[in-house]
Amino acid sequence: MTIERRSRQAGGGDEEEGVKNDLENDKAILVEDAFKNTAVPSWKEQITLRSMVTSFVLSIVFNFIVCKLNLTTGVIPSLNVAAGLLGFALVKSWTTLLDNFGLLKQPFTRQENTVIQTCGTASYLLGMSSRVAAQADGGNTPANVKNLSLGWMMGFLFVVSFVGLFSIVPLRKLMILKYKLTYPSGTATAYLINSFHTPKGAKLAKKQVGVLFKSFGGSFLFAFFQWFFASGDGCGFNSFPTFGLQAFKQKFFFDFSSTYVGVGMICPYIVNLSLLLGAIISWGFMWPVIESKKGDWYSAKLSPGSLHGIQGYRVFIAIAMMLGDGLFHVLYMLVNTTQSLFQHYRKKEDSSINPDIDIQNSEMVNYDDQRRIEYFLKDQIPNWVACTGYVALALLATLVVPFIFHQLKWYHILVAFVFAPILAFCNAYGCGLTDWSLASNYGKIAIIIFSSWVGLEGGGVIAGLASCGVMMSTVSTASDLMQDFKTGYLTLSSPRSMFFSQVIGTAMGCVITPLVFWFFYNAYPIGDPEGTYPAPYGLLYRGIALLGVEGVSSLPKHCLTLAIYFFIAAFLINLIKQVLQSYDTKYRIHRFIPSPMCMAIPFYLGGYFAIDMCVGSLILFLWEMKNKRMANDFAPAVASGLICGESLWSVPAAILSLVNLNAPICMKFISAATNTKVDSFLNGG
Amino acid sequence: MTIERRSRQAGGGDEEEGVKNDLENDKAILVEDAFKNTAVPSWKEQITLRSMVTSFVLSIVFNFIVCKLNLTTGVIPSLNVAAGLLGFALVKSWTTLLDNFGLLKQPFTRQENTVIQTCGTASYLLGMSSRVAAQADGGNTPANVKNLSLGWMMGFLFVVSFVGLFSIVPLRKLMILKYKLTYPSGTATAYLINSFHTPKGAKLAKKQVGVLFKSFGGSFLFAFFQWFFASGDGCGFNSFPTFGLQAFKQKFFFDFSSTYVGVGMICPYIVNLSLLLGAIISWGFMWPVIESKKGDWYSAKLSPGSLHGIQGYRVFIAIAMMLGDGLFHVLYMLVNTTQSLFQHYRKKEDSSINPDIDIQNSEMVNYDDQRRIEYFLKDQIPNWVACTGYVALALLATLVVPFIFHQLKWYHILVAFVFAPILAFCNAYGCGLTDWSLASNYGKIAIIIFSSWVGLEGGGVIAGLASCGVMMSTVSTASDLMQDFKTGYLTLSSPRSMFFSQVIGTAMGCVITPLVFWFFYNAYPIGDPEGTYPAPYGLLYRGIALLGVEGVSSLPKHCLTLAIYFFIAAFLINLIKQVLQSYDTKYRIHRFIPSPMCMAIPFYLGGYFAIDMCVGSLILFLWEMKNKRMANDFAPAVASGLICGESLWSVPAAILSLVNLNAPICMKFISAATNTKVDSFLNGG
Repeated sequence: MTIERRSRQAGGGDEEEGVKNDLENDKAILVEDAFKNTAVPSWKEQITLRSMVTSFVLSIVFNFIVCKLNLTTGVIPSLNVAAGLLGFALVKSWTTLLDNFGLLKQPFTRQENTVIQTCGTASYLLGMSSRVAAQADGGNTPANVKNLSLGWMMGFLFVVSFVGLFSIVPLRKLMILKYKLTYPSGTATAYLINSFHTPKGAKLAKKQVGVLFKSFGGSFLFAFFQWFFASGDGCGFNSFPTFGLQAFKQKFFFDFSSTYVGVGMICPYIVNLSLLLGAIISWGFMWPVIESKKGDWYSAKLSPGSLHGIQGYRVFIAIAMMLGDGLFHVLYMLVNTTQSLFQHYRKKEDSSINPDIDIQNSEMVNYDDQRRIEYFLKDQIPNWVACTGYVALALLATLVVPFIFHQLKWYHILVAFVFAPILAFCNAYGCGLTDWSLASNYGKIAIIIFSSWVGLEGGGVIAGLASCGVMMSTVSTASDLMQDFKTGYLTLSSPRSMFFSQVIGTAMGCVITPLVFWFFYNAYPIGDPEGTYPAPYGLLYRGIALLGVEGVSSLPKHCLTLAIYFFIAAFLINLIKQVLQSYDTKYRIHRFIPSPMCMAIPFYLGGYFAIDMCVGSLILFLWEMKNKRMANDFAPAVASGLICGESLWSVPAAILSLVNLNAPICMKFISAATNTKVDSFLNGG
Repeated sequence: MTIERRSRQAGGGDEEEGVKNDLENDKAILVEDAFKNTAVPSWKEQITLRSMVTSFVLSIVFNFIVCKLNLTTGVIPSLNVAAGLLGFALVKSWTTLLDNFGLLKQPFTRQENTVIQTCGTASYLLGMSSRVAAQADGGNTPANVKNLSLGWMMGFLFVVSFVGLFSIVPLRKLMILKYKLTYPSGTATAYLINSFHTPKGAKLAKKQVGVLFKSFGGSFLFAFFQWFFASGDGCGFNSFPTFGLQAFKQKFFFDFSSTYVGVGMICPYIVNLSLLLGAIISWGFMWPVIESKKGDWYSAKLSPGSLHGIQGYRVFIAIAMMLGDGLFHVLYMLVNTTQSLFQHYRKKEDSSINPDIDIQNSEMVNYDDQRRIEYFLKDQIPNWVACTGYVALALLATLVVPFIFHQLKWYHILVAFVFAPILAFCNAYGCGLTDWSLASNYGKIAIIIFSSWVGLEGGGVIAGLASCGVMMSTVSTASDLMQDFKTGYLTLSSPRSMFFSQVIGTAMGCVITPLVFWFFYNAYPIGDPEGTYPAPYGLLYRGIALLGVEGVSSLPKHCLTLAIYFFIAAFLINLIKQVLQSYDTKYRIHRFIPSPMCMAIPFYLGGYFAIDMCVGSLILFLWEMKNKRMANDFAPAVASGLICGESLWSVPAAILSLVNLNAPICMKFISAATNTKVDSFLNGG
């Protein structure tokens, strides 16, 4: 439903290698050997009250974090490590406490930890960008505007979120056992949880938790400190013209956001450098050139936020790059999937002669795999349950959604749900191979199709955005569930408990997500491009919908030409990267080719968060130079702490803002000349 | 001539213990054993061109640093470590370079390093506070004002600075060989230099130099960065209201000065806490209470800087505390010195029976001591040279000084030079015992005596301050020379080379110091209590002179009573501390008793630099908690880098200021209400 998996997607290729290396080391020592004498609880025992409570707490925390990230830049890193660490810390301290009082009946198992993991992440996969989109200006008719309210948001989420869970359940054995798909994130999570629960791992985990809480505290306190100096617009640390006032106007500055420094530490270097490159190309060169054509290329009388002016170039060129990137990946995934399926089909034919070939790495059918397969097959989810569930929920959504969005008719929804399982399979399969979830790309395609189908008069903008929500929700939930099944497989957790905890987590998310969003929405001017919460995807998605309903005629002069160039460039850059990845195995130049998707985000937002993230990269780089091992062990914990600390400060900050309690001081940045004027004004009276 | 040795003095008691422990470890392994095969160069070879050049460079660097510290707060830490490290780094890199080209004729010896050390420190012991004093307001008649000019400053320095060198030379054998005085700073410096020149020590020294340059670079760049945001008064990081605007008005804020963070890391904890306590007592409680009596205790119409208003309370209460502290130490030192001399006398009588008792720790006459005594006695400075030198120079000064300051007559100077050697001996002896140089206290006494002798009409203020310069210069140079003899003794450097390098260093100082001061004086509004360079001792010393000429009648209401209370309190606190130090050997509570001298400085200046220094303490404390060994090895290097980096930025900053190139941005801190006004003013036009 949103872009939240984007940064993990963008770095998928590189991250994957790291995970694979880990896995190889992992394989060398048999993991399950260490757990030989540990009983695996039944699936009902795996879903404990404490894990549900922990999930609930984490769900709130991560909803705040993700909501904040979404509304500021839309760049959201994989928070699996943070969620895993925090879940471990919470339950471990709880059980230790009970143990000290002699009250502990059940020891904390890694299957429980996996269940927490699932719930914790399930909720924040529900995005809200489609709702924020209503904030954007341009092409506004009553039919194309839907006022936000808590009621219909929750209702909409409830009817569309569960469908995806059922769409792919029957295919789990095919994908996990037969195709042995990697699912790098799911595998990494399982690796983390397993390591927590071995005695040596628990010691490291405890140290990591300690580091996490220190950086959490530091980040929280720093955000608290910053608050005092931000009494108005242009006040405070996030208006700090680090590279001078001229660069500040072009949105190049370090805004002292520990969140994005942390995000930068988690994201691969190439992501951060791509962001910076995008910022330099757009705000450093392109926009100044286009702005010099003001009055020629576009009317000089337009408001600065109008999509018919400079803002239009920013939005539509960014969209073009994203669509170009998306198109490449959809095509690449389709080619890959069919190729892979074809190979499997051929292998199957061969395996009728030699059954051993079926299993790709036959030497790996070791003790670990035996145990894993045994527990994966133990608790079944019958196919008829899955199919009935999908059909029933899809019909429910088909009936209910048109009541919420009168712009969408029942047949629109029905069409969406007919095609959704196919796309869900494609996405889950591709995600298993590369860790890239393309849900947001399918969502963008859905916007264009449905908004042009409904048309401007019928409220095509709202129709497109709503169907984007339906499509993204289904497709992304499916691939996430499959990631979780992989995690469950590697931690001997029952698929049934994984499924149920995902259901519970989704239900929590449907309640918590709109509440958190509503909280931010009322506390801050969400969607103001100059404010702290520009909510970039709101405007970008609405821009796509406008393209769908109005066509390219609404664009300012030369904007279409530029957009087409950037669309092609994005496609080509990806193609070159992919070709190099396949054929240049010596120099591995593909590692240095930037990601067009990442480059597109600062086109609209400017470079400030890219600079934050590059600072994070720099810290990580220096740390790795100094002590690679320490950096590997503790950088994710530090980064998670930085992200969580500042994000959690949003809660008291938003409350203070709601009760109209403003900061006492303004840290203002003005030019020397203005300062002379201000000083004489203040002294003169 | 100034207070520059103050912070080392204040912490003398505690530091001494550390040094003693070091010495004991040192003794366990024979130091000179490691140098057995290293030839000791002759005294002429010890004074090499490269060591002179290095001294010259260091002399300029440290003059800038000390001048800056003097003009900002007057708190100056012992920079011996920094000077030693930098000297080592400079000559070592120079010799390594030459060695690589095959040009190195002489290897770098520790005797050379000691010579550098001597020159480096000799120049910055020349202060300039007496000149800054002319800036202060109150009691101004033409006779009591002397305009600063480069010419007479250099002349004055030349005629008074060399006298001190000759005053004490004949007593060196008595103090070093017979009384075996400790001279903790001199010993510590020798220890450092010796450790640099042993192979293992050189490795550590290289690492330390690396760390020093890193922190130096960081500090310099941060100061550079800060510059951009300080376009006017109240702009920039050094006006950052870290604890809110109200606290800022009472001068409680962290001003992001890496120099004082570094100073705080070098100064003992109790010094920093004393400063903070003084700031809280004065600016937190006393001044607000006195200000509430405005119009009653003092006229409400006075300018904020008038000594008859609130500023008077600040200055004279601070002076009272300093005088109380000074009186105690002078008395204590006199008692101590006579006691110690008496003991030596008694021992001498005993030793005529048993000659071995003469040497306090007879078991210590080991290989180290043999070698040291041998080289210390090798090159003599005949007593007649010293005596002739002293008399000739004193007569020269007696003739010349009245031409510079017509307020002083020749008999004033003659009286000063008659008493100076006695005081110089007392001070050098006390310094050898405790590391406290009381030169500034003798200077203060000189101010009161001479200014009341000359009287207001005759220009008593200038006379007092000038004679303070004469007295401080003689007394402090003597004790510093003795410190250097101790260093030389422990590094087998010839006393003759030490003496000559001190002469050369003093000559350099007489040229460089006025130049550097003149540079600052023209670039900044030195002495403005609200500015960056309040030069606190300027006003404080002038306040003492005013007390001498005008008597207590010039003070505002109740100021005398308060001053007397604080004078007594300062004396008593010292007495209690000293009694506890002697009798409470179990809990050692004396460590927690603040130093009144330190408490007095923020009475005038406010707490901002105390907060910086406490931040330094905190960093050191956390570092020691984490890794005591690392902290001990590298904290002085980090601190020196922090101090040197920011201080050296003063050079380009002052040049920019001289050519009227202002910073482009003002980082302004205003209240939320003012901000609203300013915003409407800026938008309204």
